Amino acid sequence: MVKSIFEHRSIKKYKETPVSDELLKKIIEAAIRGSNTGNMQLYSVIVTKNTEIKKQLWEAHFKQNMVVQAPVLLTFVADINRFHKWCQINNAGKAYDNFLWFYNASIDAVIAAQNACIEAEDNNLGICYLGTTTYMAQKIIDILELPKGVVPVTTIVLGYPDENPPLTDRLPYNAVVFDEKYKEFSDTEIENLFYEKDNSEFTKSLINENQTENLAQIFTQKRYKLSDNIYFSKEFLKVIEKQGFMKND
Amino acid sequence: MVKSIFEHRSIKKYKETPVSDELLKKIIEAAIRGSNTGNMQLYSVIVTKNTEIKKQLWEAHFKQNMVVQAPVLLTFVADINRFHKWCQINNAGKAYDNFLWFYNASIDAVIAAQNACIEAEDNNLGICYLGTTTYMAQKIIDILELPKGVVPVTTIVLGYPDENPPLTDRLPYNAVVFDEKYKEFSDTEIENLFYEKDNSEFTKSLINENQTENLAQIFTQKRYKLSDNIYFSKEFLKVIEKQGFMKND
Repeated sequence: MVKSIFEHRSIKKYKETPVSDELLKKIIEAAIRGSNTGNMQLYSVIVTKNTEIKKQLWEAHFKQNMVVQAPVLLTFVADINRFHKWCQINNAGKAYDNFLWFYNASIDAVIAAQNACIEAEDNNLGICYLGTTTYMAQKIIDILELPKGVVPVTTIVLGYPDENPPLTDRLPYNAVVFDEKYKEFSDTEIENLFYEKDNSEFTKSLINENQTENLAQIFTQKRYKLSDNIYFSKEFLKVIEKQGFMKND
Repeated sequence: MVKSIFEHRSIKKYKETPVSDELLKKIIEAAIRGSNTGNMQLYSVIVTKNTEIKKQLWEAHFKQNMVVQAPVLLTFVADINRFHKWCQINNAGKAYDNFLWFYNASIDAVIAAQNACIEAEDNNLGICYLGTTTYMAQKIIDILELPKGVVPVTTIVLGYPDENPPLTDRLPYNAVVFDEKYKEFSDTEIENLFYEKDNSEFTKSLINENQTENLAQIFTQKRYKLSDNIYFSKEFLKVIEKQGFMKND
């Protein structure tokens, strides 16, 4: 059993203790061992330790404290730039500036990121994924000076934990795992599968705090609203196109 | 050090030995422990063991032998269907049928898949990712009966290895890892970074076999050709739209 997988919690408070260069290298080497499409390695990793750059990234990532507090950020990017340059030198043309390869490269970047997380946690570090990476892709491109052919996919915050949160709840196993065919749930089944989530003490205090009727409304009305989702969808699609990943005909 | 990360090789030949239900459950539980956006669990896992369904998936996955040979396939899907149903019951509207959330859900599905891989390998199983999942998304949707709001992201093949391949080569560390800012390489630097890959005995035999001038041309002219990439980009974008993830305005 890989202990660090089953004990994973996202860490949002970090100690100032730096991560040694040796350990950081091992973590990134773990990332690089991950499966990737055709062994083309269509991803790169940008390491941020510099205080000034961290501050810029903190602005981009919705000013979440952990971004400046943690000693290291790793930004995983989909990257066809290096591979295309190699193709060009070898008189092989360009073939990967389309959506399929943006998606392939994104998958490979995430596999690499998750390897890094598991190796980091195995070494008593804490991690947190930043979903804001895609929301604010253009700003991150500017800060990290990402050229055409490169799009940020996800960021992990890395450092020694200064908190010890409990494991996060999950839906029952049979809500997300299906044998042989997908299964549509009835309304009653959905209510049962979400029952614990809907009725925990924590949820009750959240509903009270947010002044909504229930937990689902906290998601759609407060945390991740439709108008924001549409705005960031458009922005991200623009970035993917601008960075040269949308030559689909 | 997480041994199974550093010893990972993709396995393409499998023994008939079945994977016990208990072990399979532990592997999928590892998947479910992974980080995911807002703890919304916008992914599902479809388990395939049935010989007839495996045969159908084998057709979809370009008739790769391992798909019928291995005892288990796990298809990881981006899934807003379950969450939207819960929102509907709770009078909370729909907010996630857009590209941003297709991408978020895809990331979460891959994090789950990679956790499953690492836990599987820690238990002496072999794994292989099937990139063909996105190429043939519509066919897989039909076979696994995926409803609107659900798109297949990736598939892993799972079983006891019947081969023992060496570790795959990787580009030098400093080809993919950058300090603070992205770095554009000169042509000479690219040639140096790819030197070992370009000149290995294995590459020489591949070039001979494929009748190309070099390795880069094997990628662009034989393995992953531009015309195929464009075709599958269009097809996949159609599927994303058809499955209801492109309401971006």
